[in-house]
Amino acid sequence: MTRNANIDPAARDIAPVPPCVILCEPQLGENIGTAARAMANFGLSDLRIVNPRDGWPSEKARAAASRADHVIDAVQVFDSVEAAVADLGFVFATTARSREIAKPVSGPDEAATTSVRLGVQGTKVGFLFGRERWGLNNDEVALADEIVTLPVDPDFASLNIAQAVLVCSYEWRVKANGGALPFRLDVEANPPASKDDLQRLFEHLEGALDTVNFFRPREKRPSIVRNLRNILQKASLTDQEVKTLRGVIAALEGRKTRPRKDAGVDGEAGES
Amino acid sequence: MTRNANIDPAARDIAPVPPCVILCEPQLGENIGTAARAMANFGLSDLRIVNPRDGWPSEKARAAASRADHVIDAVQVFDSVEAAVADLGFVFATTARSREIAKPVSGPDEAATTSVRLGVQGTKVGFLFGRERWGLNNDEVALADEIVTLPVDPDFASLNIAQAVLVCSYEWRVKANGGALPFRLDVEANPPASKDDLQRLFEHLEGALDTVNFFRPREKRPSIVRNLRNILQKASLTDQEVKTLRGVIAALEGRKTRPRKDAGVDGEAGES
Repeated sequence: MTRNANIDPAARDIAPVPPCVILCEPQLGENIGTAARAMANFGLSDLRIVNPRDGWPSEKARAAASRADHVIDAVQVFDSVEAAVADLGFVFATTARSREIAKPVSGPDEAATTSVRLGVQGTKVGFLFGRERWGLNNDEVALADEIVTLPVDPDFASLNIAQAVLVCSYEWRVKANGGALPFRLDVEANPPASKDDLQRLFEHLEGALDTVNFFRPREKRPSIVRNLRNILQKASLTDQEVKTLRGVIAALEGRKTRPRKDAGVDGEAGES
Repeated sequence: MTRNANIDPAARDIAPVPPCVILCEPQLGENIGTAARAMANFGLSDLRIVNPRDGWPSEKARAAASRADHVIDAVQVFDSVEAAVADLGFVFATTARSREIAKPVSGPDEAATTSVRLGVQGTKVGFLFGRERWGLNNDEVALADEIVTLPVDPDFASLNIAQAVLVCSYEWRVKANGGALPFRLDVEANPPASKDDLQRLFEHLEGALDTVNFFRPREKRPSIVRNLRNILQKASLTDQEVKTLRGVIAALEGRKTRPRKDAGVDGEAGES
């Protein structure tokens, strides 16, 4: 696909090419499976493994992957990291240890931002993870463009591969999705009350409290009123919630409440 | 500790009070343990469990916690969610399903930002996680201030409790630490080359290429030179790397290289 080099590809609303995950000499089939499952949770599916100790395919991997069969079925096996990254334009090497290599170091969030930016340009990115026991050697890290390390507590750093894959996959989805979640508060079904409705709630409450002589001494009324209004304002009340509260106040005042649809109880119309 | 209400607590450089994690009726001791371990990785240690199905203490939990004994030893057990959150000022309820409740919904990153902000103010925050099979009921969610949901792929949403705890704990640490990582590129040991050193590298290379008549036809020299300089500029070369490249160019030119400290080989001084 040719692209006009002067136009920002994001302007064409192109979804970023997702990154792949590369496991270097994974020892346990179970870890390959849990990594596959972690990827699938966040929409990634290109898993590559280099020299798996116990070979491939692996029933333990498939079992641990739970329902992520689509990832297991598509696993590519390579005999070297060079081969596994051959088609990639950018590689992140994840490591917990500082290296004597002059390579930029990012956290998973920064790496995800870079990954999405490159992915929007059509560049295929890879996240390289090392062996269970000792990670990656320096030559393998040297193949990468950047190092990624997780902000673990240095006094207790025991993340396993699948957990590191989970965090990196999660961050990629956060950045690729621009913060979209499976669901948000349904504002359409729960619209906020208007300031006018709030004002009438305030006055209803304050009138009821005046009736029972709540504001004593009289000089304190303005500051107590401000206090009460602040409480109600902070509650970010919806339309429906204001109605509910007004019914509460009316009931406490001793007024008959308006007939309620859900209760099926008749009542005389009260003042609003 | 009293605080002057008009001064931003963050200005006093107070570390945020860390949040606690509450597991509601966890079924498997192993999941309690892996949750404890996930918390410890990111510096959290206040774990509360409500009505654990298999009771407490739990050897399976301790074993799965790996070295996170400090978390296991400090676990508090409650017989209701209300009791578990009694001392908290703000609670996030994690759930994968949308609810018929008018409650704000955040992702783990937003929840972490809120959690740090509240923690800096001294407010204790809790992250509530539900049962393995069916999460939290609506009354339990109603106890919370906000809902947290992870941005999973809706077609493959199979995060378990420990994974959700891991992601939330990770996000908290990212926000609480302001992006600090266990290590970064050591710029002091690897200072960038100055533009002047780069200029001399450019001229050295271009001189060597002139000598071998590389620029043909002559009219293309300016644009090829720009191309080469762009390549070298993009490499973000350090001081030492420029020296290395100049040694490479000198060697290819056939000049004797300067004596190298690490090789112990004598050579005549070359031109710089």
